[in-house]
Amino acid sequence: MSVVNDLSRLLNPKVIAVIGASDDPTRIGGKPISYMVKQGYAGKILPVNPKRDTVQGIKSYPSVDALPDTPDIAIVAVPASAALETITALAKRGTGGAILFSAGFAEMNEEGAAIQNKMAEVATAHGMRLLGPNSLGMLNPQTHFYGTFATGLELGFPEPGNVAIVSQSGAYGAHLMAVAVQNNIGLSAAVMTGNEADLSVGDIVQMVVDDPKTQVIALYSEGVRRADVLVKALESARRKRKPVVMMKVGRSAVGGAAAQSHTASIAGDDRVFDAVMKELGVIRVETTEQMLDIARLATRGIYPADNSLGVITVSGGAGVIISDAAEALGLPMPPMPEKAQKELTEVLPYAAPRNPVDTTAQVLNDMSLLRRFTESLVRDGGYKSILGFFTYTTSAASTGARLRQEIKGVREQYPDRLFVLAAMGSREQMRQYEDDGFAIFEDPSRAVTAIDAMGRFGAAFERPEALPAPVINAVELPQSNPSEAVAKQLLAKAGIESAPESVCKDADQAVAAAQSMGGKVVMKIVSPDILHKSEIGGVLLDIEGAAAVRAGFDTLIERARKAVPNARIEGVLVAKQLSGGVECILGIHRDPVFGPMAMFGLGGIFVEILEDVVLHRCPFGEDVAENMIRSIKGAPLLLGARGRPVADIKALAGMLSRLSAFAVAAGPRLESIDLNPVFAMPEGQGAFAADAVITLKDPD
Amino acid sequence: MSVVNDLSRLLNPKVIAVIGASDDPTRIGGKPISYMVKQGYAGKILPVNPKRDTVQGIKSYPSVDALPDTPDIAIVAVPASAALETITALAKRGTGGAILFSAGFAEMNEEGAAIQNKMAEVATAHGMRLLGPNSLGMLNPQTHFYGTFATGLELGFPEPGNVAIVSQSGAYGAHLMAVAVQNNIGLSAAVMTGNEADLSVGDIVQMVVDDPKTQVIALYSEGVRRADVLVKALESARRKRKPVVMMKVGRSAVGGAAAQSHTASIAGDDRVFDAVMKELGVIRVETTEQMLDIARLATRGIYPADNSLGVITVSGGAGVIISDAAEALGLPMPPMPEKAQKELTEVLPYAAPRNPVDTTAQVLNDMSLLRRFTESLVRDGGYKSILGFFTYTTSAASTGARLRQEIKGVREQYPDRLFVLAAMGSREQMRQYEDDGFAIFEDPSRAVTAIDAMGRFGAAFERPEALPAPVINAVELPQSNPSEAVAKQLLAKAGIESAPESVCKDADQAVAAAQSMGGKVVMKIVSPDILHKSEIGGVLLDIEGAAAVRAGFDTLIERARKAVPNARIEGVLVAKQLSGGVECILGIHRDPVFGPMAMFGLGGIFVEILEDVVLHRCPFGEDVAENMIRSIKGAPLLLGARGRPVADIKALAGMLSRLSAFAVAAGPRLESIDLNPVFAMPEGQGAFAADAVITLKDPD
Repeated sequence: MSVVNDLSRLLNPKVIAVIGASDDPTRIGGKPISYMVKQGYAGKILPVNPKRDTVQGIKSYPSVDALPDTPDIAIVAVPASAALETITALAKRGTGGAILFSAGFAEMNEEGAAIQNKMAEVATAHGMRLLGPNSLGMLNPQTHFYGTFATGLELGFPEPGNVAIVSQSGAYGAHLMAVAVQNNIGLSAAVMTGNEADLSVGDIVQMVVDDPKTQVIALYSEGVRRADVLVKALESARRKRKPVVMMKVGRSAVGGAAAQSHTASIAGDDRVFDAVMKELGVIRVETTEQMLDIARLATRGIYPADNSLGVITVSGGAGVIISDAAEALGLPMPPMPEKAQKELTEVLPYAAPRNPVDTTAQVLNDMSLLRRFTESLVRDGGYKSILGFFTYTTSAASTGARLRQEIKGVREQYPDRLFVLAAMGSREQMRQYEDDGFAIFEDPSRAVTAIDAMGRFGAAFERPEALPAPVINAVELPQSNPSEAVAKQLLAKAGIESAPESVCKDADQAVAAAQSMGGKVVMKIVSPDILHKSEIGGVLLDIEGAAAVRAGFDTLIERARKAVPNARIEGVLVAKQLSGGVECILGIHRDPVFGPMAMFGLGGIFVEILEDVVLHRCPFGEDVAENMIRSIKGAPLLLGARGRPVADIKALAGMLSRLSAFAVAAGPRLESIDLNPVFAMPEGQGAFAADAVITLKDPD
Repeated sequence: MSVVNDLSRLLNPKVIAVIGASDDPTRIGGKPISYMVKQGYAGKILPVNPKRDTVQGIKSYPSVDALPDTPDIAIVAVPASAALETITALAKRGTGGAILFSAGFAEMNEEGAAIQNKMAEVATAHGMRLLGPNSLGMLNPQTHFYGTFATGLELGFPEPGNVAIVSQSGAYGAHLMAVAVQNNIGLSAAVMTGNEADLSVGDIVQMVVDDPKTQVIALYSEGVRRADVLVKALESARRKRKPVVMMKVGRSAVGGAAAQSHTASIAGDDRVFDAVMKELGVIRVETTEQMLDIARLATRGIYPADNSLGVITVSGGAGVIISDAAEALGLPMPPMPEKAQKELTEVLPYAAPRNPVDTTAQVLNDMSLLRRFTESLVRDGGYKSILGFFTYTTSAASTGARLRQEIKGVREQYPDRLFVLAAMGSREQMRQYEDDGFAIFEDPSRAVTAIDAMGRFGAAFERPEALPAPVINAVELPQSNPSEAVAKQLLAKAGIESAPESVCKDADQAVAAAQSMGGKVVMKIVSPDILHKSEIGGVLLDIEGAAAVRAGFDTLIERARKAVPNARIEGVLVAKQLSGGVECILGIHRDPVFGPMAMFGLGGIFVEILEDVVLHRCPFGEDVAENMIRSIKGAPLLLGARGRPVADIKALAGMLSRLSAFAVAAGPRLESIDLNPVFAMPEGQGAFAADAVITLKDPD
């Protein structure tokens, strides 16, 4: 039987079995039933408990086999020792999915891991999906399905809404849920995947992408178990314009170690992860607060691809704070049109009408002015996003009611704009503004961060199809790591050019080669047994003239023989020494999670000390490559900063995209490629690799 | 009469006059009286209103002169046109201070500015201090003195506490106050300075530093009107161990422009401001939230100079988030001792005992374990700061009470530790934990930021006295900008060395000079009329041999004559060309707010593109200089990164500190100095300026 991919049966079960059901509503096997009864789940609950006739007042059954209906989902709260047996019985019965609360499997020891694998096998063989083990469960507030024992629900149940929380970690997922409840964020689902024997966060993301109630996805993970599933799910989220905000932790050394020790997950290279999420239009955040701020604003469903921010404020100071925050994020705040500015200043001479539009507290004395200013901001300014800093004046007895009335009028006229208020007041007062169509933040800086994220989602949703990656002929890799010369020949077949060069067997050949190239040459030892040439003094620079070339040849051979006595020496490479270009590094590195990743950076200290590099999954076309090149901090060096010549970006981008295609064509034996340096020559003069190292996986 | 510097009379007035008092408690002249009556101000309120016998039930007087007592402070809510007259009457009467609500002065036009200045003069002449005009006022919740018309108080009054809010902006200050009320932050004062005709934020900071009730200062400003006063106040705050957390806005281009248009303030160079605040131990934040988070935690009065963070968590995921946040801030999280780790694992095999100590939710089943783990963290780990991530389990019906009891026990044993909980629950529940001695944050990342700030305060408070700045002989500046050679001679007298060099009048002298130096030389045109030599081709590098020196001499003279026909040419400078050193830039720039600022950075792209520089007020000793040098991102280049030779940091620090002393000794005519490049030679070989440009202010 094939794996069931439509998980809507799991999210919307009509028949729920609870194996290990407890009459005590505070026990793990009792909580889900208690929660569902309390909240009014309308489907069928079938407790399984061999010792009781009823559980919490509901008729109970002695075994899985004795159940009167086939469960859509089974909540399993049995001891670890009974888990395999229970899962097997459920799978044979045709159950849609099982949620396994029980812990003590892969996170404990090898034996536990073996049982966990066995359970996944049995489930898969019968077409049943498995959540867990060691899962805190899942819930759907739309239908009051509570397949979870999360204690946080004691503080309050989530309201139905359109945000789905997907979390690998149980405890943190439950924390997120509690914060969502606290902040009035309605949920369509919350799923904690635990050990991921079968269902991983990628599967669950796909489930909520396919769920019509879910519009926004908040994703928490410490690593990625099945990258292909996750990437596919995130791609379909982007196609369906469902924003995903993600917190992937383990960025730091300590954090990474902690993540590895937790839930037995795979942390992977954090910078690679960053690059891939950016590519997929996912917004990655650092804090829970950012995640839920962005998710909450995203529920408004307005994602302006060409975002711009217009600000109206009763405090000049707040206007400055907001401007600083917007600039730091790169969110444009263009000024109001001159004409509109003039008109506003005529009405209210104290006002600063540029953007931020600072009305001063004067407007509170004549609220029709507030309306007029807000309208001008929307209509004349044309901003896609509007932020009003009104703080407590939205709610104070002397100002609140009238202020609400005036801005509500503007909101109704322009339903397509993202309208955010920095406001304060009681929960009930804030809820009223939310019902009027405003998103509410207490802190203006947090509002700006969330508004900026909406634009980024929009840009990702509208992003045009990228150019196709270059087509590269099949790459035939040698048996072992190739020498520099062979590496360059392989790359040359894919259109990746090196500086003119020639492998010379003796000093005469070297002299002839150097003469034909003209100018200075670089000389390097060629041997498959010497990969790091510079470490043995195997590279000579600035060689000019026949005598120097001849001496250089002898020096290199001698050094090589001394350093690696049995090295197979194929000769000396003589290459034209390039000058006047900008030194870059292009590379490929196979990531254990996402496969071959291309890297671009500037040479020298930029990579060594500043770690100023950009990464991208392979393969990709020239447009993506050019965006990569332009995105690094040091890019001005290539773009003519301070009177420098503009580099041949087109040629460089072509080389980078061909390298990415080469990496894929070379297949899984390719471990890494280093082109260091590559000389990006002035515009129209090309880009040339001056060195190339290809490293292959050991045959076994 | 001299200016009154003791402002405690203003903060704790016993007699308060209200000029322009209104019987209507919603009017500007009515609000302060209404607030004070409502909150129970115990001193005397003396309304002044010529039209009424009583105001809000209090006996009223027709004029300032008719008042029965001399006011300690007068709240002035009269039309702008009557302000000068009122201020004059108050000043003559011997009033301690006046709070001027009225607007329409310097922020409006020249005429307004003139009246504002006049008011300040009159006040100062009679020893009265003036807050405003255009001020939202001040308040002291300790005594229920409400000299403000802030509408935000309608949402709730602040509780008495030990945080003082000092804000230039009225509206933003009032917003801060409202957020403080919302977050249970007790206040000792809140003061909004407005136009600062007399009292500036610096004066008010001094006032609250001197106030025994104030322990923590939250400062908001868009610029600095009187840098000397502010610097002195911040210095005394550090001496008295009163932490100052500051939000200075206007960081961005848009924000800076907005700040300049608002309240007519001086924004200044933001990076200079950053550097000065760091020097004074002030923590500068970007958001209101950070400001109040840090202020709130600071009220605990625990500032560990050698901060370290121990984390106990019921969620491994949260542990990772916290570790990431701590590493990003540089807050150390050393591991638990091996022995303690072993013991904990024996008690609870699932636990990850390293730090973060992840107990998993298991401890909720046996809370004595929670106590044991927490105790071990404090006692065995010895961390100065403890963060417990317990989220809703602090408050859920099934776990809250017992959890509180257990951790309270540990808290009581170790009152010197900074003990923070990431917790959720009702306001009342959170208040109980706070009363137990815990600081509460919902978001763990925000908790880490605040904990880190406490350590930074501690480090600033404990910072040893810096070395004295070098003593430099009086500097005699020439009448106009000196040539490179003269600049170097001036600097040489202060011990700032250049590479061997000589100004040569003819080609023969140049050849002789080059020969005496040996190796390659640099040749530069010398003319007081040509400051930017390289722009006219007036610098030649890599010159070697008599013929080349001779040709170079002629070339330079010819280029100079052509480019600047009337230039006074003093000759050609021949200097030894240094090699093997690291190129640095040392500079001085006169900041309009803080005076001469020293700058250090690495040469080339580090300064040009990466803006990797450090700034410090002048003068300073070698220890400060060395810290500056080590603090830049590119410092590894000087410290032997990747096999480079270690540079002569001592010599470089000596040069930088002598340059800072030179800048002060040179007096206010010195505009800037550029030593670019300076060669930091390998250890023991010194540091030498290869170029020097001194720019002076025009004589008038």
